[in-house]
Amino acid sequence: MKSKAAVAFAAGKPLEIVEIDVEGPKAGEVLIRNVASGVCHTDAFTLSGDDPEGEFPVILGHEGGAIVEAIGPGVTSVVPGDHVIPLYIPECGVCKFCTSGKTNLCQAVRATQGKGVMPDGSSRFSYKGQKLLHYMGTSTFSEYSVVAEISVAKINKAAPLEKVCLLGCGITTGIGAVLNTAKVEPGSTVAVFGMGGIGLSCVQGAVMAGASRIICVDINEDKFEMAKQLGATDFINPKKHGASIQDVIVELTDGGVDYSFECIGNTQVMRSALECCHKGWGKSVIIGVAGSGQEISTRPFQLVTGRQWMGTAFGGVKGRSELPGLVDDYLAGKIEIDSMITYSMPIEEINRAFDLMHEGKAIRSVVTF
Amino acid sequence: MKSKAAVAFAAGKPLEIVEIDVEGPKAGEVLIRNVASGVCHTDAFTLSGDDPEGEFPVILGHEGGAIVEAIGPGVTSVVPGDHVIPLYIPECGVCKFCTSGKTNLCQAVRATQGKGVMPDGSSRFSYKGQKLLHYMGTSTFSEYSVVAEISVAKINKAAPLEKVCLLGCGITTGIGAVLNTAKVEPGSTVAVFGMGGIGLSCVQGAVMAGASRIICVDINEDKFEMAKQLGATDFINPKKHGASIQDVIVELTDGGVDYSFECIGNTQVMRSALECCHKGWGKSVIIGVAGSGQEISTRPFQLVTGRQWMGTAFGGVKGRSELPGLVDDYLAGKIEIDSMITYSMPIEEINRAFDLMHEGKAIRSVVTF
Repeated sequence: MKSKAAVAFAAGKPLEIVEIDVEGPKAGEVLIRNVASGVCHTDAFTLSGDDPEGEFPVILGHEGGAIVEAIGPGVTSVVPGDHVIPLYIPECGVCKFCTSGKTNLCQAVRATQGKGVMPDGSSRFSYKGQKLLHYMGTSTFSEYSVVAEISVAKINKAAPLEKVCLLGCGITTGIGAVLNTAKVEPGSTVAVFGMGGIGLSCVQGAVMAGASRIICVDINEDKFEMAKQLGATDFINPKKHGASIQDVIVELTDGGVDYSFECIGNTQVMRSALECCHKGWGKSVIIGVAGSGQEISTRPFQLVTGRQWMGTAFGGVKGRSELPGLVDDYLAGKIEIDSMITYSMPIEEINRAFDLMHEGKAIRSVVTF
Repeated sequence: MKSKAAVAFAAGKPLEIVEIDVEGPKAGEVLIRNVASGVCHTDAFTLSGDDPEGEFPVILGHEGGAIVEAIGPGVTSVVPGDHVIPLYIPECGVCKFCTSGKTNLCQAVRATQGKGVMPDGSSRFSYKGQKLLHYMGTSTFSEYSVVAEISVAKINKAAPLEKVCLLGCGITTGIGAVLNTAKVEPGSTVAVFGMGGIGLSCVQGAVMAGASRIICVDINEDKFEMAKQLGATDFINPKKHGASIQDVIVELTDGGVDYSFECIGNTQVMRSALECCHKGWGKSVIIGVAGSGQEISTRPFQLVTGRQWMGTAFGGVKGRSELPGLVDDYLAGKIEIDSMITYSMPIEEINRAFDLMHEGKAIRSVVTF
């Protein structure tokens, strides 16, 4: 079938809106129609050419809200008409990882997903006979996309897909990092580094967890207003302090925060985030994705005296098990999404969404089909 | 009063066995008579002069078995005749750390303990009128020592002090790292780096936790025999492998171990210990003390994909609350200590104990008074 899509033909070039060919779903696969998709920094990272695993031509996009159009043989968990959020971390329910009870990092289709193909090793996308790669198992920048059955979470049909698509990545990652990975308790002090979509979602998560103090760190003070509206209590611009940011926070909190979150991808900030944690129990969670080959460091004394260094992907959330509940939380007014969408535009204007991101003007842009 | 003691008059010099003067206990203090003391690498580290906080002249020793001789005003938790293990991490029970429920790192006397004096800022030790410093709040290389009330754990009198003194540091640290800090579950796979007293105690802890596979890593294969006797299952000499040790272990365990423990103090090994852990859930605990200024590093991807990096001091064990139970476990045959004591000698031969340690011949030497 034909589908409108924004194709990345080469690294560093604007996407091109073209009509591509999409094959129907094979066994264990689902054909979905994306209604909307968020535009995330990870898409921009791959598009830039800096992603060592990025290959072209490819259909990017991994933050979608979609409707099931058709199912392949053997698919039992969804039927046409179901509303779904595509999952870049699937949940097969039977692999070593899914059954461990300790992680959301299902590895069932990892190898093929990383290569930009479906689990059988082939692509469902082509343009004028040329094969196009899939991306993160989702490719939500195409109106029609084919994904593995284990890569969709069925959600409440009452939810507006052009809003809850953001639960497909950024918002879930931030909230999940706080609730699932760090397990922040009521009364805790929290520091969040970087007030982009993920950082703001960490603030939301911290409010949901009942944190008593939520310290936001960013060099762009314009971003503090939204954080404040979401419930953050303290705001620090590191450029305005002579001392290291970890010293400033340790001083401010009588010994350091209970939990910290790095939402930038800067390895120096990751170190600050660890070292601003309280001796004895502080936990620091890395969420941001660092550049290829970069490393984090600290003195081991930081850990021997009780700090813990961890990380998270998709906020530790198991997509099919937990995402439907987050959608319901949104519908119940417990999760804020609408104000995070600073721009909405048709897919034809998707390159503007990337420009707005690079200019620091957008928390999130959503494109619609 | 007069006391026999092994005094470190200067860095890098042998200890001198002399008769020193010990003042009686002041308010909140306890005079103890050490019956025996282990000789630990940390004593050697300070004696070497490499410890940036080490000052001289000082009475080293922190792994003691003792009897209370007298108590100062206000002391209520022990009486003369009680058997105790001195604690280099005290437990006041009321500070922010003790009441957190998250750490054993009581900070009640940290500042003065770090300076080698009692909580009132003065020393109880002198030699020919010259003040001698305390060490780690314990100074168990003096027959008579004065310690804070919060720095002794009262234990079962049935326990032989010349054995259970080792619960004052090494054995408790290793067992506690496994049971308290990492919280190893039955059926887990475990890797232990470094088969000294701490590493062997990690093996013990892993056996107690019901680990199904316990992989020992050391470049000295002579040390594997004792580990095997304690219940370890696999033995790896990194020098016999071309690949990095983390790759060897990941291969051997189909993806990595569930838990790893670094018991050496080598920052490169700390990295290996982290990176040999299983994606999604592996936890690595740093126990070894690295040289001053050294740093650990890794790619943040290691943490983002679910590994956790942590550390421990005294195995996360709260001395006054938990050490009596470990002594009882020893008496009940649940903890092995006797075979860890490779040499026993009178205090007069303590310099030989340091020599044996440096020659790699001793797991632990115990000196007696």
